[in-house]
Amino acid sequence: MRYWNSWGHDNTEKPPLTESALTFVRETLGDSQPLPEATLEEVCKQVPESRLPDHALIDKSAEVRVRHARGQSLPDWIAMKSGDFGCFPDGVACPETPEQIRELLELSREKDFIVIPYGGGTSVAGHINPQQQDKAVLTLSLERMTRLLDLNEESQIATFGPGTPGPMVEAQLASRGYTLGHYPQSFELSTIGGWVASRSSGQQSLRYGRIEQMFAGGRLETFDGTMDIPTIPASSAGPDLREVVLGSEGRFGVISEVKVRVTRAPEKEEFIVVYFPNWEKAYQFCREATQQKIQLSMLRASNAVETWSQLKLAGHDDLVAWLERYLRLRGVDEGKCMVTFGITGNKIQVMAARGQVHKLIRSYGGVGMTGLGPKVGRLWEKGRFRYPYLRENLWKHGYAVDTLETSVNWDKTNTTIDGIENSLRTALEDEGEVVHCFTHLSHVYTQGSSIYTTYLFRMGKTHEETLARWNKLKKACSIAVVEHGGTISHQHGVGRDHAPYLKHEKGPLGMAALYSLSEHFDPDQRLNPGGLLEEITENEKSTEGAL
Amino acid sequence: MRYWNSWGHDNTEKPPLTESALTFVRETLGDSQPLPEATLEEVCKQVPESRLPDHALIDKSAEVRVRHARGQSLPDWIAMKSGDFGCFPDGVACPETPEQIRELLELSREKDFIVIPYGGGTSVAGHINPQQQDKAVLTLSLERMTRLLDLNEESQIATFGPGTPGPMVEAQLASRGYTLGHYPQSFELSTIGGWVASRSSGQQSLRYGRIEQMFAGGRLETFDGTMDIPTIPASSAGPDLREVVLGSEGRFGVISEVKVRVTRAPEKEEFIVVYFPNWEKAYQFCREATQQKIQLSMLRASNAVETWSQLKLAGHDDLVAWLERYLRLRGVDEGKCMVTFGITGNKIQVMAARGQVHKLIRSYGGVGMTGLGPKVGRLWEKGRFRYPYLRENLWKHGYAVDTLETSVNWDKTNTTIDGIENSLRTALEDEGEVVHCFTHLSHVYTQGSSIYTTYLFRMGKTHEETLARWNKLKKACSIAVVEHGGTISHQHGVGRDHAPYLKHEKGPLGMAALYSLSEHFDPDQRLNPGGLLEEITENEKSTEGAL
Repeated sequence: MRYWNSWGHDNTEKPPLTESALTFVRETLGDSQPLPEATLEEVCKQVPESRLPDHALIDKSAEVRVRHARGQSLPDWIAMKSGDFGCFPDGVACPETPEQIRELLELSREKDFIVIPYGGGTSVAGHINPQQQDKAVLTLSLERMTRLLDLNEESQIATFGPGTPGPMVEAQLASRGYTLGHYPQSFELSTIGGWVASRSSGQQSLRYGRIEQMFAGGRLETFDGTMDIPTIPASSAGPDLREVVLGSEGRFGVISEVKVRVTRAPEKEEFIVVYFPNWEKAYQFCREATQQKIQLSMLRASNAVETWSQLKLAGHDDLVAWLERYLRLRGVDEGKCMVTFGITGNKIQVMAARGQVHKLIRSYGGVGMTGLGPKVGRLWEKGRFRYPYLRENLWKHGYAVDTLETSVNWDKTNTTIDGIENSLRTALEDEGEVVHCFTHLSHVYTQGSSIYTTYLFRMGKTHEETLARWNKLKKACSIAVVEHGGTISHQHGVGRDHAPYLKHEKGPLGMAALYSLSEHFDPDQRLNPGGLLEEITENEKSTEGAL
Repeated sequence: MRYWNSWGHDNTEKPPLTESALTFVRETLGDSQPLPEATLEEVCKQVPESRLPDHALIDKSAEVRVRHARGQSLPDWIAMKSGDFGCFPDGVACPETPEQIRELLELSREKDFIVIPYGGGTSVAGHINPQQQDKAVLTLSLERMTRLLDLNEESQIATFGPGTPGPMVEAQLASRGYTLGHYPQSFELSTIGGWVASRSSGQQSLRYGRIEQMFAGGRLETFDGTMDIPTIPASSAGPDLREVVLGSEGRFGVISEVKVRVTRAPEKEEFIVVYFPNWEKAYQFCREATQQKIQLSMLRASNAVETWSQLKLAGHDDLVAWLERYLRLRGVDEGKCMVTFGITGNKIQVMAARGQVHKLIRSYGGVGMTGLGPKVGRLWEKGRFRYPYLRENLWKHGYAVDTLETSVNWDKTNTTIDGIENSLRTALEDEGEVVHCFTHLSHVYTQGSSIYTTYLFRMGKTHEETLARWNKLKKACSIAVVEHGGTISHQHGVGRDHAPYLKHEKGPLGMAALYSLSEHFDPDQRLNPGGLLEEITENEKSTEGAL
């Protein structure tokens, strides 16, 4: 069963938080106390009467409305834990076909509802949260459209229902010998339609591409009917409509079918963890490996604070002590940085990539490639989708953890990391609170890298105080991102939390073009209003007003 | 000096048309006679008085207006050779800065001009041709904005003036040890801004990507000011504005600066030509090599008719006879198909790619990899940008040659090739005229391939009759493309010639979205009207009307 107020399923094996890991957190942030948690029953009692009419496709029961009211952002967690939801959708429809989606859109237009398309509910940026408003809100969940509808093996195109979550995407493909290779951290719960709508990126994007490179076509249900995007390999026939659907976050229509480029399951795959003596060398190694186009499937680099924080949080003191002795003997000590990479492909490709990368690791003083690396890599692989469960572990002890991410060109990577980390470390200074933060590069490109920063802080004495701390932190790091010219999101999307910052990268004319598309597809602003693009008044609709 | 009525420059070494090649054409199509050609002087005399005011940036001289009136489509050639241009721009402005572009746009809005952005003038689909209309037409040529403005070596981002032609892109980068790697057939004349505006693809797209993958950001000058697109490696922050500029064909604004992802000049590069016993094997080899992600930089496959036609047109009878004997001895004879590929990268990458591809070639019965292949490959490389000169050679003898291209998924490739070739072969049956056509796959993707078909036919007794023949052929093959679900252009863009067919791949809702963007950026429809999107009347503007 999926948790109603936390990440994941109750039957998933979860990573433990050992006593020594907890000691590390306590020593870093100070002692803390957990906050009280509301029960599902208590929350259900708050759910007001639905403003939606009775309809065969619409479930208006309180529990279903609670379970679809929030995503996985930290404010969502505070709402779910405190029971203070603010508002709920008036009902949840779970269509099983594109026809039913169209029927629900038509109904919404006729009856003047707001519609929120809903995939896996894993948004960490407030994508799917209903807002207080006069109109009834219908959440349109795609959770019953989870099938592999077609697999064309010659063209390697698979057609999926939009609500197919990661494990079902891969299981259905694996039974035919194929893989999509899209592994976001949210893999266990997030859906293929959600990946498209929010321009998701998976851990092995270096081989398989981001969802933009996988999304070959599909269907978008709009108020004017179905926009069918054919799967053409490449085209110079005008602007690419797939790129309008990608990242549209439910504002232009509801994705009812997703066609993706798949690959035969690879002959070989391995993940390897190596350690570099310092950040500069780890960083240069990543840049070089990418710009040399070495066929890696994944490449990520933790800075020094993340490296030792991860070792502390792993909680296996003996093993970690052994590892550190081993590294010290090989000249990698204080300030060491962990780099994890994947090699995927046929035998020759794997051998060639290993040869190139080994040479490059040595040239930057990295160690671990042959002995330790593959072993630690296998541990990483085993636990790769379990990190989101750590939040619950810490929460129970009164600590909050959140992440943010951006991407910038290589020449701005280091100053941007410093800017973001400094903004977080100082954001709660006025309260005398310590913020512990660390960073890794999670996705690399020839021109630059994504930056993924994790931050831990002590909860306040109340849920409100905790939320106030988060608001300060979120504002500080978002401003830092924008000031360094980063995108407000490399892989989590815009939602409501990032919408105020979007204008800084899109510019006034870019924003005006996006607003114009939104008005074109949804003239009544009925689809997820306020997500992606902030609501603006008539007066603000001029180009300048948009900023 | 650039030719005013033909392809290229007079100081470029051109491929000869040998007597035996000409004999092949005569035997295939029948004898023909060349048509008379107008002189530049005669055409200049026809140029009417300009409707533009005097302005320091605008050249209204007849010769400049003639030289910017047409592209390189076959109808353009007929216009240039016959001297029957129909109409000319009223003047040509050659701005040197983005500020001057904005000044010219502002002037055009104030004085009610039509503006046609102009790059290298190499369009083969009527992108830059002025139309008969009441308003004065200003062609805005970017030919003076040809500099490498910045090269960030750490992030491998180069900034260019939009009018920089291929050889100047590569020469300026080469002097710093870099390459863009974008080599369309039009490389000698086409420009980096034109590549972006028309979604161009270069021969080595398998390594370097299409221009979509290279275009990192830049500036679009619009009537509302400058739209600045920052160079962010990847983002999930809403729809990608680069993808709105890419393929916009001058309809949304004028590209004034192009930032591209560049690569260090490769350690090694080689091109190899191999021969397969039949099309099925050549085709399967290409699909396999691509889907296995072998690191090739280029891969193209000629069908049997193209293979022998190329051998005949090469004109070296002795060498070809020797080659055919050699192939016959190795089991490759009648029906053989030529496959050309490139391997580019560092030493290990080249070695690994060679190993994988060699194994695959053998498994499909291909020959030539080790002995002959690299030699013929070097010949191909030497002449790779000279093919466009062949049109003039044939024209002089009364034969017309044109090409078309599309792309479809692998499962539709063969039926689409057959459909296109049949449509051409039968298009002039009513006149008893033979059409000789042949095809290659020019760009490959995991999901499918581009299809590039060349067709030769005999000119009519007059220029009008020749144009009428071309119209029949163009219509027939465009319908075949559309009926097989191909894109109306994989690499040549839409312009005016392909605009009527665009709706078949974009669909009514996609077309409506594009029209909506065009009205957003250019409410007076002043920028290149009729290009990309056909002009529609007020009544047709509803969604259904767009089709």
